Parts: sequence; structure tokens; C-alpha cells
Amino acid sequence: MSETREESVRVGVVGGTGYTGQEVLNLLARHDGASVVFATSRSSAGEPTPVPGLPFTPPDRQAARDVDVLFLCLPHGHAAEWVEALLGSGGRAPRIIDLTADHRPGSGRESAAVYGLNEWYREEVGDASLVANPGCYPTGILTALLPLVQGGAVDEDRLTVINAASGVTGAGRAARVDLLFAEVSGNYKTYGGGNRHRHLREVRAELGTLQVLFQPHLLPVPRGILETIVLPVAPGVSADDIREAWQARYQGEPAVRVQDRGLPQLRDVVGTDRAHLGVEETEETGAPVVVVGAAIDNLGKGAAGQAVQNFNAMMGWPTERGIRC
Amino acid sequence: MSETREESVRVGVVGGTGYTGQEVLNLLARHDGASVVFATSRSSAGEPTPVPGLPFTPPDRQAARDVDVLFLCLPHGHAAEWVEALLGSGGRAPRIIDLTADHRPGSGRESAAVYGLNEWYREEVGDASLVANPGCYPTGILTALLPLVQGGAVDEDRLTVINAASGVTGAGRAARVDLLFAEVSGNYKTYGGGNRHRHLREVRAELGTLQVLFQPHLLPVPRGILETIVLPVAPGVSADDIREAWQARYQGEPAVRVQDRGLPQLRDVVGTDRAHLGVEETEETGAPVVVVGAAIDNLGKGAAGQAVQNFNAMMGWPTERGIRC
Amino acid sequence: MSETREESVRVGVVGGTGYTGQEVLNLLARHDGASVVFATSRSSAGEPTPVPGLPFTPPDRQAARDVDVLFLCLPHGHAAEWVEALLGSGGRAPRIIDLTADHRPGSGRESAAVYGLNEWYREEVGDASLVANPGCYPTGILTALLPLVQGGAVDEDRLTVINAASGVTGAGRAARVDLLFAEVSGNYKTYGGGNRHRHLREVRAELGTLQVLFQPHLLPVPRGILETIVLPVAPGVSADDIREAWQARYQGEPAVRVQDRGLPQLRDVVGTDRAHLGVEETEETGAPVVVVGAAIDNLGKGAAGQAVQNFNAMMGWPTERGIRC
Amino acid sequence: MSETREESVRVGVVGGTGYTGQEVLNLLARHDGASVVFATSRSSAGEPTPVPGLPFTPPDRQAARDVDVLFLCLPHGHAAEWVEALLGSGGRAPRIIDLTADHRPGSGRESAAVYGLNEWYREEVGDASLVANPGCYPTGILTALLPLVQGGAVDEDRLTVINAASGVTGAGRAARVDLLFAEVSGNYKTYGGGNRHRHLREVRAELGTLQVLFQPHLLPVPRGILETIVLPVAPGVSADDIREAWQARYQGEPAVRVQDRGLPQLRDVVGTDRAHLGVEETEETGAPVVVVGAAIDNLGKGAAGQAVQNFNAMMGWPTERGIRC
Repeated sequence: MSETREESVRVGVVGGTGYTGQEVLNLLARHDGASVVFATSRSSAGEPTPVPGLPFTPPDRQAARDVDVLFLCLPHGHAAEWVEALLGSGGRAPRIIDLTADHRPGSGRESAAVYGLNEWYREEVGDASLVANPGCYPTGILTALLPLVQGGAVDEDRLTVINAASGVTGAGRAARVDLLFAEVSGNYKTYGGGNRHRHLREVRAELGTLQVLFQPHLLPVPRGILETIVLPVAPGVSADDIREAWQARYQGEPAVRVQDRGLPQLRDVVGTDRAHLGVEETEETGAPVVVVGAAIDNLGKGAAGQAVQNFNAMMGWPTERGIRC
Repeated sequence: MSETREESVRVGVVGGTGYTGQEVLNLLARHDGASVVFATSRSSAGEPTPVPGLPFTPPDRQAARDVDVLFLCLPHGHAAEWVEALLGSGGRAPRIIDLTADHRPGSGRESAAVYGLNEWYREEVGDASLVANPGCYPTGILTALLPLVQGGAVDEDRLTVINAASGVTGAGRAARVDLLFAEVSGNYKTYGGGNRHRHLREVRAELGTLQVLFQPHLLPVPRGILETIVLPVAPGVSADDIREAWQARYQGEPAVRVQDRGLPQLRDVVGTDRAHLGVEETEETGAPVVVVGAAIDNLGKGAAGQAVQNFNAMMGWPTERGIRC
Repeated sequence: MSETREESVRVGVVGGTGYTGQEVLNLLARHDGASVVFATSRSSAGEPTPVPGLPFTPPDRQAARDVDVLFLCLPHGHAAEWVEALLGSGGRAPRIIDLTADHRPGSGRESAAVYGLNEWYREEVGDASLVANPGCYPTGILTALLPLVQGGAVDEDRLTVINAASGVTGAGRAARVDLLFAEVSGNYKTYGGGNRHRHLREVRAELGTLQVLFQPHLLPVPRGILETIVLPVAPGVSADDIREAWQARYQGEPAVRVQDRGLPQLRDVVGTDRAHLGVEETEETGAPVVVVGAAIDNLGKGAAGQAVQNFNAMMGWPTERGIRC
Repeated sequence: MSETREESVRVGVVGGTGYTGQEVLNLLARHDGASVVFATSRSSAGEPTPVPGLPFTPPDRQAARDVDVLFLCLPHGHAAEWVEALLGSGGRAPRIIDLTADHRPGSGRESAAVYGLNEWYREEVGDASLVANPGCYPTGILTALLPLVQGGAVDEDRLTVINAASGVTGAGRAARVDLLFAEVSGNYKTYGGGNRHRHLREVRAELGTLQVLFQPHLLPVPRGILETIVLPVAPGVSADDIREAWQARYQGEPAVRVQDRGLPQLRDVVGTDRAHLGVEETEETGAPVVVVGAAIDNLGKGAAGQAVQNFNAMMGWPTERGIRC
């Protein structure tokens, strides 16, 4: 597993007890090219990590300089200072994969980082010193829509409606009353509506002029995201055309699966690092629309899985090394 | 409770062990104007019902003739023959509230029945011998959209997108592998897509020429429906205008609540017989849209609660008698 | 509902936004003998309560003096000072029903209060100025075991093993990571083991010399308690004898139901204010034991329901007035 | 993965769409020593299996003769005829791992099989032509108690009380109303009580004269078993003694973990093939008892994981090959 071997890359994880950090550690502990040399936690220092023999330690920037690759799994807003301290001051520094929103498109700091939408920017990630790992919602949306927008399948004069639903780990591991079991169980609700969700900036940066309405919901499940997109299509575009556009773009990509028929569901992807895409035609809608579905595990392809794909890209390794696809 | 009192109306329930039938019986057992004289079940004859002292009995059409009002809580497709046998042949017959789809708009038998969307057809229900109790999805959609379409708030040239999600009791109490706990728990999926859901005929019958795309989802919760509607609005129509249109229409209606702000959630309505309506404005969507939310309990306002409202209408009683609002 | 009527008793609720406080308010709002004149909340002052037209207000001891009966729904440890301030200093004071553990047997303050195990101390409650409303676990245990211990059915030389499981609202509405949906969902665990749970003092105070082992578990459900008790019985004691002992003791008690056969389950009682009792015989255990089951809703009979029974007892009203049984 | 390699063992799976069969296939698909050459399903023939490129095929006894090892993942009662047909009639036959109860102790057919409690009978499994894979409940109980009974830590004159709780996949993937999401969600109940559960024969066969009371419960979770055992101990036996007895017995066993402190919980083991054991001391119980906890995933260590351990034993491979521990 992760004992240091000659060819192992030394990695560190900052913030290992949040849901994202746990998942990153679970993957790295089983990754045969990585050797986890530390994992930090303020609250759980001394407790065991998923890496055999490695306890959590308090955050330590000096130790962070001593690894090859650093994964930042902090609350949003707390990664920027780590990046500045490590990359902004000279001296030995690790390459950094930032899983927070701090360096994503729309953050104001995006120019310092490569956007790590892996199947689209893998080559740039290979050369990057700082990667902004994409948000979970944008990963599903962009994986589904980028090939269609670029291929001209979308009627950009009409509104694309993105109905999204996420499990509660998407909100992080914070002690909040609204995330208690007794509040979430049996419930289902919208949030972040009116196109004001933070993730939307990231989507717009990639999709250009496409008009979208993005409405997220909170699901009573621990993990998984399903995005059900009502997509206005150009005249004559069929579901088969959509599938073909995806297949052409993602052929040979193990972390993206295109379904032969129907729309994906959460259970297809929970516990994996894959995205599943599907499409269905519709009747009697006036101008033509199709329904596109994108499913990911928000902690897998939507966070830790894609981070490991980016780690692999940095190392020049196959994208599927150490991920569940 | 349900002991026969001088003014009690004699009622019977056919199909009392399905989820809808259980809920109807729970309400009628506490309704101070109703005396439940029988409740049928093929599989549970002899077992106790929610009505103290009343066991389930096998279906019996002769007994059904002897009540004032009959509630049909059968699987879809099985009510039509009961109606034909009781109403089509002369002789004493009960007034019937059919909770199946058999006599709803689009069924081909709708001309024989009054459509029991209570806040809209209460007067007609008062005179009806046969009421087609509305479907759960249409109840939420129509309650939200009818005042807006009639008031001219909707831009009918653009597509109205209805994303809906329902708890599993909406699928009935059938022994199906896809409804097992181990299949549904942790999952979330679309179904009946492409505008091919049975309920859509009912919606179209009432909404006329409005173009809609209806996409239902299955939620891992026992009960409740949330409909999140992306509604294209006429120029200048604000969220306040929408709320005012609802308030004007539903003033004095105890089973419909208009929220002052935000969108409703499942927990607001689970275990009640109310509909909750809410609306939020949006930004940057090109032509203007608002997001409308309608929440009901599929077994409450979406089935048994509205059936009791219709029963009350038949008797000339206040609509809230015996319901949870 | 709760409009002030001539015969209405003026009540106040301190701590109305915890799970217990919410349930007390839900019951009182529908209680036709009570008029809720205030409900306090530090965090939600100004927000609506379940009582139409009544918003939450900040805690106010002067206002508390002005009601007839005061319900204390605070975190454990915070009720004692309210009681001392109101009852210890002369002047007009309300009668108090304390839903915390502060005055229960074993608290050190039990001598100041009547223990409100309603079916056992109703008469004393009728005269009390301060009632210690029982804990949820003890309510189930004592309701099941008191008639059996007093009737000599239990072999007190052997250990009585109480395996208990509770939904998460039993832990209160605190922002704790271990109560988050993503932590509780799909999990099941023991806690408070080794006979060190706070509630055990309360049980021992009533059951005397009976040797018990009490092992609670946390269930991934919002509400409900099931206690599965392996009970050593005296020679010749059958399940029928146990049921007869219960029936003799609880005849005419609407909030306790004895099942004719089998053990109760959570769904029998969730959302009600009843306890359900059942018993099953066993084979091949050496000395004879039976398995006794007691099920309650921890927020119903285990908290708010019993509090309303105690309120009714204070007023000389029927015990079932305003409760769900 | 599972492409046929020189050293791969050819395996077949009968009954691949039940929960146990799915889990066996998931493990075998990733086992680098196994090549799955067929997986049968009556209902899903033609559908894909977890093994890339391999669709389900209808049951075929001739094909079954052609593999090295056959996994029977059928409903209880349906394996015996397969075994008889393949092993009772001469000709080439596979070695068989039967995951049903058909050849377990107490079945009446146990003499034909080696009982596959892996950490206890690994050597015998290595030579066996037919292995009876243990039941899920017995696996936890026996793993915890065998070292203690054999080491004399248990006071056999008193009753050992085993409170067990299982997720719903333990009941199989049958279309039963009582296993529907809407029935199980929010519920918790006993079943198979009074020491009449099928699994108990298996436990008694191994534990000899120990007196036990076994009370299973159904948990509203998809998977996992927790057994909370109130164990009468011999004078002077401490929790440390218990842990030492386990550690001595299971040293070097990767699929059994002994916790340093506290009792295990479901989340420790769900999705793994490990058993977790823990123990806590208790106070004030009269004669001394400890509380022992055993947690497994019913589909992992309780079924498929142990089956793969037994497969490894047949091949002389390390027990952890291809399992999640």
C-alpha cells in the first residue's frame, strides 16, 4: 500500500478529517504511487488516519514544504493563505492541489492556478504548480455540457435549466443544526437559488454565453449528485447525436461513462470516481429540448477522485491509477 | 371519534390497506361527521382498521350500496368497474370519491366525473355523484400555476420546466424489488421522463396551451412531493406579483398557504393536508424566469386530505373539517 | 384551538425550539383547555410558533410568573435555576412541569418534585407545584416492568438485560458533528454503556433491588425508542401471565396499550403519545426468561405527551385530553 | 482485473443478482487470481455483470462443471440440488462454496461440507470439495465468543444475551411488502425471536453447552450487523483479559480487528470484509458481566468476504487476497 517505495511520491494532506480530506486519504492510502507522509488535523491530532501507522498531526507549514505534492482539503477561504505562504515566498515548495473554491474560476485568484477539470485540462495540469480542483456541481455540469456546447448541439437562445440535487456531505462536516440527522431525514429542499450559488461562476467561466438557471437541492442521502438538465437543442439534434458527441469526446476516458440509454442515478456512482452521463428525448415541448442527466459522487469524481486524477497528471501517470472507475 | 351519531354520514372505504387507503381511514376515523361502516381488504380481512372496533372485511358491492359516500382507494384501473357496477345499473347507490386515475382528465372517462381539484371545483363537487380525486403531482402543479396562467403572469411562448420529486409512497404499496429499502435508500433517480408520465394529461387538461416539460424523480423519503418550477414570466412580473396572485385566489382557503419568502420544503407539509407555495426571483437568465415551489404530502393534500375536502364539499361542510391544516 | 376561552388555562413554554419544546408546543396549540400565552427562544425570537399568531419571545421570568402552568423544555441543567427563582422566592408563581433531568430521581433535587410517571403518580401530580417529567428511556422501562416486579413475576436473583435503542432527537437539537446526517445515516452504535447512563438512576429509584444491565444504542431514525428486555421470570410465569399483569394495571389507561401477541415496533408509536407493550416466550435458555418489548415515541409518551398528561392531572382533566392516543 | 491470465483460477457464480451474489461478483471482478467465466441469473440474463465484458447467462449445470470453483449464491433451500447434481454423480466437478444455509451446521446436510468459519477452519477448507459458508449473524457471534468460551472466560451457568441488529440486505432481495422503503424507513423492530431463528442452530453447534438468548432486530440501514452481547464472565475476568484472548487468537489475521477500547459500530465495517470486536466493563450488575460488541458487514465478512477468504484457502493463497480489510 503506502509504505515508501523507491518510486513513491511523497504527499501530504492538510485538513484530513473533513469529508473531502477523509476521501482523499482513503484514495491515497491505496494508491501504489503515493506515500502519505503526513495528514493534518487540528481537532484529531494523534488519532489514526486511513494510512496504516500514520496518526494525524497538527498543521505544520514547514513539513508541508518537504513533500512533493500537497492536497489542501480545508474549508473554503482557508487555502489561499497556505498557497501564498508556500508558493509566494521562494524556497522549496510542493506542488499543490487545492480542493477548496479559493482558486477556481470566479474566485479572483484563478489566474494563479490551472483549473483541474481533468478530462479537459490534463495537459496543463501536468505542468502546473497549483491546481484548482473543480467544484462538485460544476464537474457534472461541465462534463455533460462542454462537448455539446462546443459541438453546436445547444440552442443558446433558450434557457438551459439545471436542476441539481446533492447529498449532505457536499456541505462539509460542520456542526450545523440544519445538517443534523433529525432535520435532514425525510426532508428535501432547495437552497442557494436564484442563480446565486457560488459554483455558478465556475460554470459560466467555462460555458461562455450559455444562459443557465441553476437550482440546487439538498437530498437526504450522505453522498452523490444528480444533475437533471433540460437542454434546448438545435433543430434536428437527437439523443443519439448527444451520445455520439459524448462518446467522441470521452473515448478512452475511464472516469466518464456514457449510458446507452436512459438517465443515470445516484447508485450508479456513489462510492466511485466516475461521472455517468445519459440523455432522454421528450415530447410536446414546443421548441425541442432533451433531458440530460449527469451523476457523480460529490466526494469521488466531484472532489477526491478528480484530485487524484490531477495528481496522476502531474506525475505523468495513467489517469485511472488509484481511483475507483 | 367515529361512533354513529345522529348527524353522522355513513361512509365506506374500498382498498383500505394501500398507503392511500390507510391515510383515508386515518382521517375518517377522526372526522366527527363521518361514521365508517366498512373498510375492505382482500389480504387483511379480519385485521383491525384505524377505526376502533372495525375490522377489515372482504370487498362486497352490496354493502357498498348501503353507505352515503364511498371512497375508492384501489390500484389504478380497478375503480372503473366499481363505478360502473354501482352507478350504472340503477338501484340505491352511494356518492363516490374515486382516488384512482380512472376518471381523471385524460382517462377517457372524465366526462362521467367532476374533477375534484377542491379549491377550483368545490361547487361542482357539491353536486357530484362521482368525483375524480386529482393526482398528487397535478395537485401541486395546478394549485401553483392556475392562478398565474389565468392572471396572465406566464410567458406562454417559452417552456415551463417542472422538476418534481416524490417520496416512495407515491408508487403505491406494491411488492416491487425497485421499491425495497435497500434499493431506494441512498439513491435518487428520474423516472417517467420525456413528458410521458400519466399525470401529465391531467395537467394539460387544466393548463391549456401552456408548454410544459415535466420531469419526476424518486426521493428516498416515505412521503412528500416538492415541485420546483422554472417559470417564464411576462415582462415586469415580480415575485411579489406572483405571491399577490396566489393570495388573492387562496384567501380564506385553509389548505393552501402562501409563503412570505423563500421556497417551501418537504418538512413543511409532511403529515399535513396543506399545499405550500413559494417563489424566488432569479438573476442573469436572459428572458425573465422565476422559480416557483409547491410542496404537498402526496398522501395528504395529494390524496386523502383532498378526498376529505371533497367529502366535506359534498356534505356542505367547511373544507377544513377533519383535515390537518 | 388556542384562543383564550373562559375556561382556558394560561400556560407558558420556556425553550420552545428544541425538539421537546417544539413537540410540547404542537400539543398545546391543539389542546382545547390550554391557552399558550408565551413561548421563549433565545435564538428564534420573533419567529412564528406552532400557535397561530404567537411569535417566540426571549426568556422573561416576570412573564413566567403570570401563567398558571409553566413547561420547562431546556437543556439538562438549566431548569433548576428557573425553578429556584420562581418557586423559592415567594410571590405569585406558576405550577411547573420540568421536562429536564434536573428534578428527577437521582438528581439530588428529587425531593422538591413529584415524579411524573403519569400512570403511577397521577394523584400526587394533581397536587404538585413542581413535577419532574420522566426521562424517555425510564418511561418505557418502568411502564413495562413496574407491574411485573410488584406482582412478583420477576426472578430478581438473575440479571435483567435492557437493550434499548433511540432515535436521534433523544440527544436534543444540538449542533454536534456526531449527530450530522452524514454521520448517523447508515450507522448504528452503542453509547453510554456499562450501566453509566444518567437515566439509570431514575430506573433504579423505582425498581428497587432489581439487578439491571442497561445498554442504549443510537438508531438512524428521527424519533422513537424500542426497549427489548430479556427478563428472568419466576418459575411458571408465562407470557400470558405477563400480559394479564399489564392489562390489570393499565385497564382504562388510554396511553398504554398491551399487545395481544408479539413485540411492538417503532412504527406503532412514532407520532403518538402512547406506550406499547408486548412479550414473547423463549426456548432453551436454561432458567426461564421472556423477552419484553416496550415502544414509545421519545418526544411523545417519552416527553411532551406525558407532560400534557401531567398538565391534565394538575387540572383534574381526563388524561387523554389533547394527546394522541 | 479479471482477464484470464496464466495463473487465474476459473470461477463461476450461480445467482448473481441477489445482494450476496452481487457482492461476490464485485469482489471476484477485482480479485487478481480469479477469472469469472460465468455468472447466472434467471431474470437478468443478457444484462451486464460487474465483470467487464461478461453478461449474465441463464443457469446451466453443464457450464458449472467446467470451472474450478463454483459460488452458490441462491435463496436458502436451492443450493442442495446443485450440490447433489454436481458432486453426487461422478464426472468432472468444481469445488463448491455454498453461501446458502443448506449445508451449515443444523441443516441436516452438514456432514457433507466443511464449515467455512475461515479463521477457525481454514486448513480444512483448504482440502474441502464443499464449503458451507457461515451465516452472517453466526460469523459475528462465533468470532467474538469462540476464543472466550475456549479460554474459560465465560460463566456458562448464566445466560449469555445476544442482542443483534441487521440491515435489510440480510433478508435478501425479495419483493416483499415488509421490506419496502416506506415500511422500513424510520422503523426498528424485532423478528425471529424466542430463540427460534435459523441461525441459532449454527451457533449452538459451535458453542456447545453455552446457554444463549438470541434476539435479532431489523435496522433501517441497507447493510451491516451489530451484535451487542451481555456476557457473564468468570470471577476476575476483566475487559483487558477479553481483549488479550482475542488478540492472542487473531494475531496476524487481517480480517479480524480488536479495538483497544470501546465497542464497534456499523460504520467501522460497512463496505469492508472485516469483523471488529470490542468490549466494555459494567457496574452494578450483581454477578459480573461485560458487554461485548461484534460488527461486520453482513454482505462482506458475513457473506462474500468470507467466501473469498475460503476461496483463497482452497487455493493456498493469503486470506486477504482480493478482500477489503
